[in-house]
Amino acid sequence: MDRSAEFRRWKAQCLSRADLSRKGSVDEDVVELVQLLNGREQYFTTSSCAGRILLLDGGINGFEVQKQNCCWLLVTHKPCVKDDVMPALRKATGDAILKFEPLILHVQCRELQDAQILHSVAIDSGFRNSGITVGKRGKTMLAIRSTHGLEVPLSHKGKLMVTEEYIDFLLQIANQKMEENKKRIERFYNCLQHALEKETVTNSYPKKKIKDKNNSSYTRKKKRNPEAAHDKCITEENDEDCENDDDPGISITIFPEDY
Amino acid sequence: MDRSAEFRRWKAQCLSRADLSRKGSVDEDVVELVQLLNGREQYFTTSSCAGRILLLDGGINGFEVQKQNCCWLLVTHKPCVKDDVMPALRKATGDAILKFEPLILHVQCRELQDAQILHSVAIDSGFRNSGITVGKRGKTMLAIRSTHGLEVPLSHKGKLMVTEEYIDFLLQIANQKMEENKKRIERFYNCLQHALEKETVTNSYPKKKIKDKNNSSYTRKKKRNPEAAHDKCITEENDEDCENDDDPGISITIFPEDY
Repeated sequence: MDRSAEFRRWKAQCLSRADLSRKGSVDEDVVELVQLLNGREQYFTTSSCAGRILLLDGGINGFEVQKQNCCWLLVTHKPCVKDDVMPALRKATGDAILKFEPLILHVQCRELQDAQILHSVAIDSGFRNSGITVGKRGKTMLAIRSTHGLEVPLSHKGKLMVTEEYIDFLLQIANQKMEENKKRIERFYNCLQHALEKETVTNSYPKKKIKDKNNSSYTRKKKRNPEAAHDKCITEENDEDCENDDDPGISITIFPEDY
Repeated sequence: MDRSAEFRRWKAQCLSRADLSRKGSVDEDVVELVQLLNGREQYFTTSSCAGRILLLDGGINGFEVQKQNCCWLLVTHKPCVKDDVMPALRKATGDAILKFEPLILHVQCRELQDAQILHSVAIDSGFRNSGITVGKRGKTMLAIRSTHGLEVPLSHKGKLMVTEEYIDFLLQIANQKMEENKKRIERFYNCLQHALEKETVTNSYPKKKIKDKNNSSYTRKKKRNPEAAHDKCITEENDEDCENDDDPGISITIFPEDY
């Protein structure tokens, strides 16, 4: 079976299976994006979380919370206030941690080239920790991730280590991050639609394909700040995928533009 | 010029340039790893940070700290205590945030296959947010990242929002994370050395190359917990690169093993 037929077969099987997540359905804020991707022959999503605020009760001995072993005191995909969190937090017996986790989306891609296009759109939309995985038999997956989290220890051995005023302050920040995450998802959706339209046009003129690839979907401006890009789909130079530009604290070497 | 010669040329240029980081040198905890990679013809590192505790003073209006615009009150690659942090924290006039950032390493790879091997080793060593970027002209970069961070808002408009006791508690956690990060770097170094040795043996017998690729470096056991792997270089099935296994809260579809 050729790769393309194999991909179609796996896509069909994958999408026909039951949703095995705890929630059992795709998060509301990411439904449209998931549908857009699954509606294209070159992609299908294998896991998604739109973004959430989590309150976890970790073991007191292990400093790193293993999500599968710890108690989930609260999970919400919507903004929340102190009165949502405090009752849950009072149930903690170990080391409770509040986390904001932005969008995580795993997309299987037919070809490396399909993953490259999607990766480029993800980076441009602010999901800078995205990356491709290529399996031993060529299975190509893009993980879409943001840098945009929050992880705050709140209690130790069941004892609250912060004030309620701090919880209030913290939730305002978490809610703002959730709002920003939602904007990035919308930006991603818009930019992806734009890129896929270009792809479709390109594929209608196969002779021009390579030329168009270099001059349209892949044309980038050296502009890294996703905040400045908004919904304009300004594509960026993401070849380096480095924290370089932001961060003079990292030991770096700069590449010339033309590599 | 063929790809291989082009890669060599860029590697030479890149490594001969001055270190443009704020610190101006490679972090001590990652020097050996960087040397190991740069000593191999198929890799070179373009940026690195071994892991650090950061205290940033962000603007009070923007909730997301832009590292290049904000004030760095403290940066350390070593464990620290309350008395290191408090004097720096008192200088905050905006919204100060304490972060622990684990290893970040960007490695340019000659071929996709070289990136796949390194990616596999990174995942197996606990750097689960690692991912490949393939540029428009085929430039292949692996970003090695961990899930293993901390981001804690501490003050608002210069006012400290937590107690000194909490700072003490928080730094214990940050220091533990730094210690665990160091272990992962060591594990990564050992596993990489092991994988590269196998590669060398494989390349000495070119006829067996493909067979060996499938049966040695790429042989994996379905074992995801990096804590359990220690330095044993148990390789894992990382094709999926999903948070699936850990996290029943994410909407997922599971792949069969043989894809």
